[in-house]
Amino acid sequence: MNKRLASVAAWLKAEKTDAAFITSPDNVFYLSGYRSDPHERLLGICVFQEKEPFLVCPAMEAYDAKKAGWEYDILGVQDTDNPWDLVAEEIRGRIGDVHTLAIEKEHLNVERFEALKERFGGARFTAAEEKLRMMRLIKDEHERKILREAAAFADLAVETGIREIKEGKTELEIVAAIEFAMKEKGISEMSFATTVLSGAKAASPHGVPGLDKIEKGNFVLFDLGVVHQGYCSDITRTVAFGGLNEEQTRIYETVLKAEEAAVAAAKPGVKAKELDLIARRIIEDAGYGEYFTHRLGHGLGISIHEYPSVTHTNELVLEEGMVFTIEPGIYVPGVAGVRIEDDVCITKTGAEVLTKYPKALQYV
Amino acid sequence: MNKRLASVAAWLKAEKTDAAFITSPDNVFYLSGYRSDPHERLLGICVFQEKEPFLVCPAMEAYDAKKAGWEYDILGVQDTDNPWDLVAEEIRGRIGDVHTLAIEKEHLNVERFEALKERFGGARFTAAEEKLRMMRLIKDEHERKILREAAAFADLAVETGIREIKEGKTELEIVAAIEFAMKEKGISEMSFATTVLSGAKAASPHGVPGLDKIEKGNFVLFDLGVVHQGYCSDITRTVAFGGLNEEQTRIYETVLKAEEAAVAAAKPGVKAKELDLIARRIIEDAGYGEYFTHRLGHGLGISIHEYPSVTHTNELVLEEGMVFTIEPGIYVPGVAGVRIEDDVCITKTGAEVLTKYPKALQYV
Repeated sequence: MNKRLASVAAWLKAEKTDAAFITSPDNVFYLSGYRSDPHERLLGICVFQEKEPFLVCPAMEAYDAKKAGWEYDILGVQDTDNPWDLVAEEIRGRIGDVHTLAIEKEHLNVERFEALKERFGGARFTAAEEKLRMMRLIKDEHERKILREAAAFADLAVETGIREIKEGKTELEIVAAIEFAMKEKGISEMSFATTVLSGAKAASPHGVPGLDKIEKGNFVLFDLGVVHQGYCSDITRTVAFGGLNEEQTRIYETVLKAEEAAVAAAKPGVKAKELDLIARRIIEDAGYGEYFTHRLGHGLGISIHEYPSVTHTNELVLEEGMVFTIEPGIYVPGVAGVRIEDDVCITKTGAEVLTKYPKALQYV
Repeated sequence: MNKRLASVAAWLKAEKTDAAFITSPDNVFYLSGYRSDPHERLLGICVFQEKEPFLVCPAMEAYDAKKAGWEYDILGVQDTDNPWDLVAEEIRGRIGDVHTLAIEKEHLNVERFEALKERFGGARFTAAEEKLRMMRLIKDEHERKILREAAAFADLAVETGIREIKEGKTELEIVAAIEFAMKEKGISEMSFATTVLSGAKAASPHGVPGLDKIEKGNFVLFDLGVVHQGYCSDITRTVAFGGLNEEQTRIYETVLKAEEAAVAAAKPGVKAKELDLIARRIIEDAGYGEYFTHRLGHGLGISIHEYPSVTHTNELVLEEGMVFTIEPGIYVPGVAGVRIEDDVCITKTGAEVLTKYPKALQYV
């Protein structure tokens, strides 16, 4: 078994759990190298303590799964089959009756849960997600290489967007130009809806780009990322379009100082919450504490939001290989919205900043 | 209560069900007019037999929900609240103990289900989706107007894509140009990943656009749609790039004949399966039966796939107001892939074709 599958098997043993049935596409990809969104059809990996795992997928995808590197049995399901009968039979064939089965309780729906319960009447169902989250928390060399490349695409996307800023253009036109440039580079999926916000709208942390023309004398905020070989990047840059007033400039400099201080403090042995608090204190000291309304950052990998969550309460001690965003922001309604975000990877002695687009206040 | 909520309430009464807790964003939008993707936060509508419904959503979204037209109570949940305690209290406050609660079993995950079960110990949980699917099956005048507009955007998108065809261009470049044009029109979301496939790739019903240059002497297939005011469109057109050989032409003409025959047969009183069989027989008679590997079509509305499913076994009798796709295809590996797809709305006497881009074989 590959290292990841072996780690799940060892966990099953330690937890006295007979098997784990993993069904979220992100975790299936993590364990198998096979990435697919089967919609209403069943996709899953069943891992056992000792026996070899198997993959269940639509029959027409079996070839792709093998090509992606899956070396074990594949249970190809035809649309006319009952996938749950096949899965239950396959599990029983390997280990007989099931007493405890780990599932992804946040991913599996009630309908599927009832189908499993029907076939494994007396079984106890436990949650598998925490184990997988903790595994995915530390990125190996191969993952870091991909994340570095994904971040480079994000840099290029921001550069493209900033080049497109011109009076009269709408937010959506700039979004379109960015995604156009990414597609030309072979990126077929952004990691979330590309955000370009201007003026008052940048002051909302969840604003949606529209046909609003970007306005001079204010900020333009870019928040975007790409999916590259199954891994996500996520960058935010905020630039000045035309001149800024004194308060707008002060807000920018405060966010930048907070962001750089948190990046500089990121290293093994530091707690996640300390980074949040370092940034938060700088923003509070400048008088904008109430306008920094979200956590400092989130883990990044196969999912756009994963562990570690960088909040002011997370006691998690940072370790080499953790990858997350650092993205303080200040949103003052009617005045300005500024956020600066980098992706960082904890190294042996500090942090590698994956996103490299310059952060000094830029006037367009 | 609005008509839709009243219909759910009447159903609860008929089914002797105390309440329905609806959590899928599409059904919440259908019942409330409020469209939101709350990610890991809780969004839901609770409907009762007699009492007024309430909406539960993140506290910061309460204002938007009200603005979208929700007239009843809103339970705004702070990130520090336990949403399930609040929901349980609100339900008990209205109707006391709960004996039967309808939920969306395909949408609710096991974690949330366990949270509900913990708070309504003895309750029976039934499935609400079929009722909502049947309600959404018939589109009212307002919905039809929006779907018509959504289809017009899809026509324009296909027109844009065909104009972009040029030797040396990649599939992704054409995808980018299409989405660019849509964003300029204010469309911020496509209804699914825009598909442009050339040559051999068009022969796969689930191919993914890439950096492949489009090839002369073959087909280019466009499959795309937009989200407009919460409703989806979906169109497929296949055009010839350069010359075609005899068999390719025959395949195109067969698909076109099948598509037009199914469209012509669509009217109230006809069964869904009859449309599928009409198209299938034409394709079989031409000797390509084994290469038409999917159902004729799917319902279309708030979701890109909803009722009615147009399969060769669906006995559902078509009625005025049903909206669905008609999209036969022939995929012969190494030879050609052709699909033609329209969105149609059943009228009093026939069917209105919402998508209007011409279907006669076009050479670019």
